[in-house]
Amino acid sequence: MTEAEFIAALRRLPLHPAARGLNDDTALLDAGPLVVTTDTLVEGVHFLPTDPAQDVAWKLVATNLSDLAAKGAVPEGILLNYPLSRDAWDRAFLDGLAEILAAHDTRLIGGDTVTLPPGAPRILTVTAFGSDAAAPARSGAKAGDALYVTGTIGDAGAGLAIARGTPGPPELLAAYRRPQPRLAEGRILAPHVHAMMDVSDGLLIDAARMARASGLAVAIDLARIPLSDAYRAVSGDRLAAATAGDDYQLLFAAPAGIATDATRIGVFAPGTGLTLHDAGTPVARPESLGYEHDSSG
Amino acid sequence: MTEAEFIAALRRLPLHPAARGLNDDTALLDAGPLVVTTDTLVEGVHFLPTDPAQDVAWKLVATNLSDLAAKGAVPEGILLNYPLSRDAWDRAFLDGLAEILAAHDTRLIGGDTVTLPPGAPRILTVTAFGSDAAAPARSGAKAGDALYVTGTIGDAGAGLAIARGTPGPPELLAAYRRPQPRLAEGRILAPHVHAMMDVSDGLLIDAARMARASGLAVAIDLARIPLSDAYRAVSGDRLAAATAGDDYQLLFAAPAGIATDATRIGVFAPGTGLTLHDAGTPVARPESLGYEHDSSG
Repeated sequence: MTEAEFIAALRRLPLHPAARGLNDDTALLDAGPLVVTTDTLVEGVHFLPTDPAQDVAWKLVATNLSDLAAKGAVPEGILLNYPLSRDAWDRAFLDGLAEILAAHDTRLIGGDTVTLPPGAPRILTVTAFGSDAAAPARSGAKAGDALYVTGTIGDAGAGLAIARGTPGPPELLAAYRRPQPRLAEGRILAPHVHAMMDVSDGLLIDAARMARASGLAVAIDLARIPLSDAYRAVSGDRLAAATAGDDYQLLFAAPAGIATDATRIGVFAPGTGLTLHDAGTPVARPESLGYEHDSSG
Repeated sequence: MTEAEFIAALRRLPLHPAARGLNDDTALLDAGPLVVTTDTLVEGVHFLPTDPAQDVAWKLVATNLSDLAAKGAVPEGILLNYPLSRDAWDRAFLDGLAEILAAHDTRLIGGDTVTLPPGAPRILTVTAFGSDAAAPARSGAKAGDALYVTGTIGDAGAGLAIARGTPGPPELLAAYRRPQPRLAEGRILAPHVHAMMDVSDGLLIDAARMARASGLAVAIDLARIPLSDAYRAVSGDRLAAATAGDDYQLLFAAPAGIATDATRIGVFAPGTGLTLHDAGTPVARPESLGYEHDSSG
């Protein structure tokens, strides 16, 4: 698509009033305190060249909304930085974008379109704004807090293997390509937890980051890591699940016994570092706790 | 540089309180109504592979601050989406980033770092936030308004030729590599103008966009387009200057006679389209009015 065609298509998406109809160089956002997050996805690094464009759009927005979920924020809108490819990929991307904006009542605020040199991998950025947040930091865990995680872990990692050609069920592939940001749970949890973040790079590495930011040690019971029936059917490897990443579940520290559907998987204590056990039996720390080269402040 | 080294270096830059020390996945911005803008620069498209990394950092931030200037906003801070290259380029980029943040009292709010596949061109995004803005739209010009532009036009276009190897003076090269966002002038002008935008893609194309957004025609006198002595010495071609882009001057519509140092170069009238003359003698519209494939809402 040309830039003009692409922007015309964007104007048919739900626009935030701040967008001024996408007719200006800037947006004007007047929404009180804002939670702001930005994520860049790179073709060949964060998604496969063979991933459908609709799913790339979904995932690009979902990864940002997942960060808002971890702060208990309500999505206000997004900025999109998009490399035009002048082919059907653009239209399919717009379809996926429309789907996820509608699914989470999120509107477009603005963005930028660019043209890439021939053969360059696609690099896409979304910046998301959320309002009305309790905004627990990742650094607020207290000694004695339990570590909880929502949903199940490892499905997206298994889904990535399926996307690369390993046979497996569609629900695992969907977990990789269409992660569901936990916005409703985040809203409910945020006022009651001491620390919260989403699991993007791997359960273990993200738990280690929460412990380090909080100045504490964390011990995780692998036997308690929640697995889906689909994951158990194809693998059931808990250590692989806990280091695979792309789960977009919520990881939080709260007093043990808090009312929640989330699974209690560990405990914070004075000290530093992450230790693992399997229902009490010590387990050696794997060499890699997850995906190291991504994400920042 | 590794991601950890790069983020440690970012923490030595002036951080916005919203950044939470770059220790969280989100920033928390509580600054009242915000002007928001985002620009992506692509190596080989918006900058040359031979442009120094310091200057790329400067330009990446300057293009965004220029959009804030056109709204009369005070820079609040930026988000940076950065592709790590694991070589000296990263350190030089950080030096240029520190320079422009200091020059315009702008702080870092957050961002994302990614790794690119080998050989991929660098793609960098900055999102800038400004506060306290009068925020004139580009669509507010009225019939009878004069069209004004700040500074001189064409210097950056001539500077690009120098960057590509044509001999020429350093001040023109600097105009291309180190554009100066007109923040102080924007602050003064914004409450008094009917429409304002920055000149990024070319004076003529940006003036045509202002006229179209305002539902008016605009007539521009090429003889009045302000040229620097340096530009006159190497070329003096007014049509080339007016279509070259990268000027980052402010273009605004206001009643003729407004007190300003800016140059009056045209007039808005009922109708549509852009017409050119040279001190009264009609001039044919060039095939290209400027750089077409960039920028959006």
